[in-house]
Amino acid sequence: MASALRVLGIDPGLTRCGVGVVDVRRDRSASLVHVGVVRSDPSMPIEERLAAIAGGIRSVLRDHAPDVVAVERVFAQHNRSTVMGTAQASGIALMLAGEHGLPAATHTPSEVKAAITGYGSADKLQVQTMVARVLRLDALPQPADAADALALALCHAWRRGVAPGGSSETLTPAQQAWANAERVARR
Amino acid sequence: MASALRVLGIDPGLTRCGVGVVDVRRDRSASLVHVGVVRSDPSMPIEERLAAIAGGIRSVLRDHAPDVVAVERVFAQHNRSTVMGTAQASGIALMLAGEHGLPAATHTPSEVKAAITGYGSADKLQVQTMVARVLRLDALPQPADAADALALALCHAWRRGVAPGGSSETLTPAQQAWANAERVARR
Repeated sequence: MASALRVLGIDPGLTRCGVGVVDVRRDRSASLVHVGVVRSDPSMPIEERLAAIAGGIRSVLRDHAPDVVAVERVFAQHNRSTVMGTAQASGIALMLAGEHGLPAATHTPSEVKAAITGYGSADKLQVQTMVARVLRLDALPQPADAADALALALCHAWRRGVAPGGSSETLTPAQQAWANAERVARR
Repeated sequence: MASALRVLGIDPGLTRCGVGVVDVRRDRSASLVHVGVVRSDPSMPIEERLAAIAGGIRSVLRDHAPDVVAVERVFAQHNRSTVMGTAQASGIALMLAGEHGLPAATHTPSEVKAAITGYGSADKLQVQTMVARVLRLDALPQPADAADALALALCHAWRRGVAPGGSSETLTPAQQAWANAERVARR
């Protein structure tokens, strides 16, 4: 597994923060390392909630030692009531990557959907289905926050070009599906 | 100084994050403990910038051991280009308070201006002038981020009711000005 890139994907949120760790090899095959949701109790003060989110992310960083951290990009213009908590959680996720000396990147939801399904407006079920296929999971990753975190991690490895020398002759069906999605996304 | 409340005020920002520590006694008199600006280099990756902000705030928490942390509230609808960085920095400030076991609070810019000057739409010079007067500073606190952090810290102590038993007979002129501002703000 020495040649694999280990990516921690984080779907930031204050109540539920999805975390997913995958190993992605140069031939684009990927395997699940960890998936979960870090939660904070909405009845707690904001400073304790954010500290709980930070503690959960720190545990994942310590237990699984990723090479890179990918965080979903938050947009201020999405003026949902939760946007500030999401932005604050994303800041903590990025800061913790920096404190651990890890590079971090952000990707938009559309980038993730396009990378995983080939279609930037894919629905959650399509994303979950493709994540399960790529990671050879027996069931769809649950809950959606966890699936999104895995999709983000896979997206990051794939966009970063983990397998610049990959050729379609050596791809498994799932890898071929990825390669096709890549071509579609690039159009 | 045992009866003083030590407040760390934080004006969150990614490029410049104002930090101000004041001791506020029960008679409402206040003194300056520390003021500064934590900076991050805009040319650095976001994860390193946020880690630099966190490191600077941690230093203030360690060196000055505040009792409480007050952070300016950020609004998503202020759709400036910097709003996400400001929100991320505010999340880090609140999280660090939580990790240090300190209570935290947020106050809006209008609340701070009303608390300090008696007028929610006061300009920066009015706020700086009043902060300098209350803290008996020889010059206006500079830069504006630092003055805002001090104003936030004073606002927090004052709104929290540091001096529930204070009477106007025992107030200095600056304290009297505060008390007047309080009455105006409550109308």
